[in-house]
Amino acid sequence: MSEDGGAGATGAAVLDPELAGRLKRNADGLLCAVVVDHGTSDVLMVAWMNDEALAHTLATRQATYFSRSRQQLWVKGATSGHTQHVREVRLDCDADTVLLRVDQTGPACHTGTRTCFDSDVLLPDG
Amino acid sequence: MSEDGGAGATGAAVLDPELAGRLKRNADGLLCAVVVDHGTSDVLMVAWMNDEALAHTLATRQATYFSRSRQQLWVKGATSGHTQHVREVRLDCDADTVLLRVDQTGPACHTGTRTCFDSDVLLPDG
Repeated sequence: MSEDGGAGATGAAVLDPELAGRLKRNADGLLCAVVVDHGTSDVLMVAWMNDEALAHTLATRQATYFSRSRQQLWVKGATSGHTQHVREVRLDCDADTVLLRVDQTGPACHTGTRTCFDSDVLLPDG
Repeated sequence: MSEDGGAGATGAAVLDPELAGRLKRNADGLLCAVVVDHGTSDVLMVAWMNDEALAHTLATRQATYFSRSRQQLWVKGATSGHTQHVREVRLDCDADTVLLRVDQTGPACHTGTRTCFDSDVLLPDG
């Protein structure tokens, strides 16, 4: 769950009330967001969204998350330039996780690797 | 985050202490687990693991999660038959999320769809 120090989002997108009523947020009011590269289908990262982050993402197609460490909205790549243009957003069967397909500019991971899962293999292919 | 009512795991696999020391669990002692189909690279589902679930997964290559609703281990497909043979496990850059590549038998979702993200498109491809 990588955060690259992006600046807070501007503007205040509002979530559609019908959608807002269906979401199953965790105790912190957040949804899990799994982010997939549209071109390769690789899982790039996992992050978190509050309602405003999801609304901003849906309204602008700029992937926007909620930084748990900084407790503020975080437009991916706002400082690093490693933006994510959102191609598609899906909600899972029990409405607590969203799946984003994105066009990723540069590395997705704050460590500089292409994905957040590149470096640490716990169980090799077998 | 689908649960298909699988029975609890038997046996007590123990996590490698070096790995256990690196994990960043949430307040409930859990890691997020993103599950990808090895053949198609589609994201099938998201679930949660405690240390024992991860240890059981690594030791047996049977995808094993922690059911938050039932507060017990859950070997995927133990009752439904919709098992997941684990091909690979990776840990993300900040050690709070694992990525599993699996060979999925049958539908991954308890609703009977192939993935948990098949039915609810919030933002169409664009």
